[in-house]
Amino acid sequence: MTTTLRLGIAGLGTVGVGVMRIVAAHADLLARRTGREIAVTAVSARERGRDRGIDLSAHAWEDDAVALARRDDVDIFVELIGGEDGVARAAVEAAIDAGKHVVTANKAMLAVHGHALAERAEAAGVALRFEAAVAGGIPCIKALSEGLAGNRIKRVMGVMNGTCNYILTRMEDAGLPYDTVFAEAHALGYLEADPQLDVGGIDAAHKLALLAALAYGTRVDFEGVAIEGIERVSIADIRHAADLGFRIKLLGVAQMTGRGLEARMAPCLVPAKSPLGQLQGATNMVVLDGDAVGQIVLRGAGAGEGPTASAVMADVADIARGTRMPVFGQPAGTLARPFRATAGTPSPYYLRMDLHDKPGALAKIAACLGEAGISIDRMRQYDHAETVAPVLIVTHKAARASLDEAIESMGRTGVLAGDPVALRIETLAV
Amino acid sequence: MTTTLRLGIAGLGTVGVGVMRIVAAHADLLARRTGREIAVTAVSARERGRDRGIDLSAHAWEDDAVALARRDDVDIFVELIGGEDGVARAAVEAAIDAGKHVVTANKAMLAVHGHALAERAEAAGVALRFEAAVAGGIPCIKALSEGLAGNRIKRVMGVMNGTCNYILTRMEDAGLPYDTVFAEAHALGYLEADPQLDVGGIDAAHKLALLAALAYGTRVDFEGVAIEGIERVSIADIRHAADLGFRIKLLGVAQMTGRGLEARMAPCLVPAKSPLGQLQGATNMVVLDGDAVGQIVLRGAGAGEGPTASAVMADVADIARGTRMPVFGQPAGTLARPFRATAGTPSPYYLRMDLHDKPGALAKIAACLGEAGISIDRMRQYDHAETVAPVLIVTHKAARASLDEAIESMGRTGVLAGDPVALRIETLAV
Repeated sequence: MTTTLRLGIAGLGTVGVGVMRIVAAHADLLARRTGREIAVTAVSARERGRDRGIDLSAHAWEDDAVALARRDDVDIFVELIGGEDGVARAAVEAAIDAGKHVVTANKAMLAVHGHALAERAEAAGVALRFEAAVAGGIPCIKALSEGLAGNRIKRVMGVMNGTCNYILTRMEDAGLPYDTVFAEAHALGYLEADPQLDVGGIDAAHKLALLAALAYGTRVDFEGVAIEGIERVSIADIRHAADLGFRIKLLGVAQMTGRGLEARMAPCLVPAKSPLGQLQGATNMVVLDGDAVGQIVLRGAGAGEGPTASAVMADVADIARGTRMPVFGQPAGTLARPFRATAGTPSPYYLRMDLHDKPGALAKIAACLGEAGISIDRMRQYDHAETVAPVLIVTHKAARASLDEAIESMGRTGVLAGDPVALRIETLAV
Repeated sequence: MTTTLRLGIAGLGTVGVGVMRIVAAHADLLARRTGREIAVTAVSARERGRDRGIDLSAHAWEDDAVALARRDDVDIFVELIGGEDGVARAAVEAAIDAGKHVVTANKAMLAVHGHALAERAEAAGVALRFEAAVAGGIPCIKALSEGLAGNRIKRVMGVMNGTCNYILTRMEDAGLPYDTVFAEAHALGYLEADPQLDVGGIDAAHKLALLAALAYGTRVDFEGVAIEGIERVSIADIRHAADLGFRIKLLGVAQMTGRGLEARMAPCLVPAKSPLGQLQGATNMVVLDGDAVGQIVLRGAGAGEGPTASAVMADVADIARGTRMPVFGQPAGTLARPFRATAGTPSPYYLRMDLHDKPGALAKIAACLGEAGISIDRMRQYDHAETVAPVLIVTHKAARASLDEAIESMGRTGVLAGDPVALRIETLAV
């Protein structure tokens, strides 16, 4: 048994507390598995006095995370503060510069500054690991960068924001409108301080950007992810989708195409009976397609104290065992510049709109699609009592750019009441 | 870039050929990801002349796998021969003794000799890795021993023999009897040379024994796995199970209980709509339950050239990157002796039997269950034209020992025509 591996934990929210609980509860187990004693020596958080349900008296306290990161009695700096800049980034940089390993759950910081931090960590010869940043307890970073290391990755896909999936499944199960379920989720504490990070698809896009970098050996490129949130998905959309045999999921897809890397995070229709379609509540699913292995599907809790702390501890255990890998699976200097696809892969689309109840309205809409080269698979006008008629259209495969062009020309016809909702129908088999 | 990492591959069946294809096709990718050139220097197989669709001329040939294992120009010995003893074991031992790392897909050898080989490898300071031995391309060894290293494992479960799952799903889909589908599977080359390894549940039990050792920190204990094969599952059972909302799967479960470690591999009824129930064809599924992470479900191809070669290459990449871990996740000397549960966890059972069509027959059977303390949830006698009446019973939770006792006393009543089929109804939520 060599010397104790000493953790400094910055951020004592649920995940930080979860990590402290695991270290305390499984000291023997961790020592047997890693060959080293693992201990928390120092902690840092915003409010020292808050009751967290754990005893902090045995650990040194720092008000300042940067000071914690530089302490001589810290070997691994565990960053659980969050936020792409500010104290989280300053502390991680300080830890790296002080020669400490870093374990973080901070997808925002890595999605934006990941490449610079990887270069910095590799130059300093320290580990920078982030299993907890993507899909909570699911060991998907490890599966992708180690388990599938012999594969050319063809596609990475996933439902990776539990809050959005909770909202969408709750809307369907309870027949409740988006605003009501959003308010519920807020009251339950499921939403980030800035809810837009969740429902706007940004948090999930951060995660997708990290997976894409690992999968394709490129510098992390958050700006290259096309993002749509779930705010415009209505209970009517969920019901129409169900009638068609689909469910709506906030799905991320990153795939390498002949035109470059296509990365998008958007609400999509997926077959209701597929594993993705059946994913309920806050559960996450990550789907990896490799040229040798075929398709690997990983499912588990995407958030919460235990699952996220489990992922943090996987990284800590790897460091304790002496495992050393480049941050993004290959040395930062060898990562390619991102080569974004100029256009997305065509797909069928679900299109819902309200039309003013005037003669010829539907014909005008159909004409707009036809002029953009989009053919219609199914079209349905629903019963209506009011002066607007709800219309549902399923297109054959179309390029998103053509669809946007069609929607723009629909706007000029004067028959639309409000903006149409356009959702990709994801025909990828999972 | 350091020196080339040189592989010696023993066994050139589909998996060996798959490994050679990956090494050739992804030389650049592997070098970027691992920091080392990886090359195959020498190979060995039973028949030199056989056409395998790949060019072997650039590689040294050895008729003898043991000689291959000892070659100076081999750093990693890749054992893809199979079989628990014989040349596979001799060659692996020779490789370890010669200071070579070993990567193997050989579950039979590890399930029986794993502990001795782990001690030997650890004493020699070499890696012995076996991702490819369990569930083909699914990186489940890595997920369990690394990804979930911070967890006390509560249960490991899985469908891990693709051939059995193919047979069972094909019987259901095509409405064909076991013997017909078995013959089909044989003709398609899906069965091991000794088919009993597949349909007898032995291959799957080998895999479960390995997972259990990793999960619970015990010496691998194949003898401790209670094994039942699928040979007695009839198309009638599959139909009855479907009527009840279940599917029959060859399911392995290893769980730690207050009475010790319970490990069983047997055909079970699982809810038809659960992920396990929906598993089709040769696909595998591994379910890991940890105290912190909750439930992680992994799905993928359980066999075949690409998937299994992908798993072999994951181990090779880890070794190339310098990752070193004890063979069973903690040093062999610290692995506990297996502590087998003296009795299994009670569960409901599905019981099918044929009764001689005599007055009071059903009452006698019910009495046998009652005397063993087993209460009946549902009982159904089917229409019959012949002199035997098919009867289906679903019990409430019962201990297997009580059930066996009841079945034994049923045998003494003289009303049974043939042996009853008893299948556990797995109520574990997946």
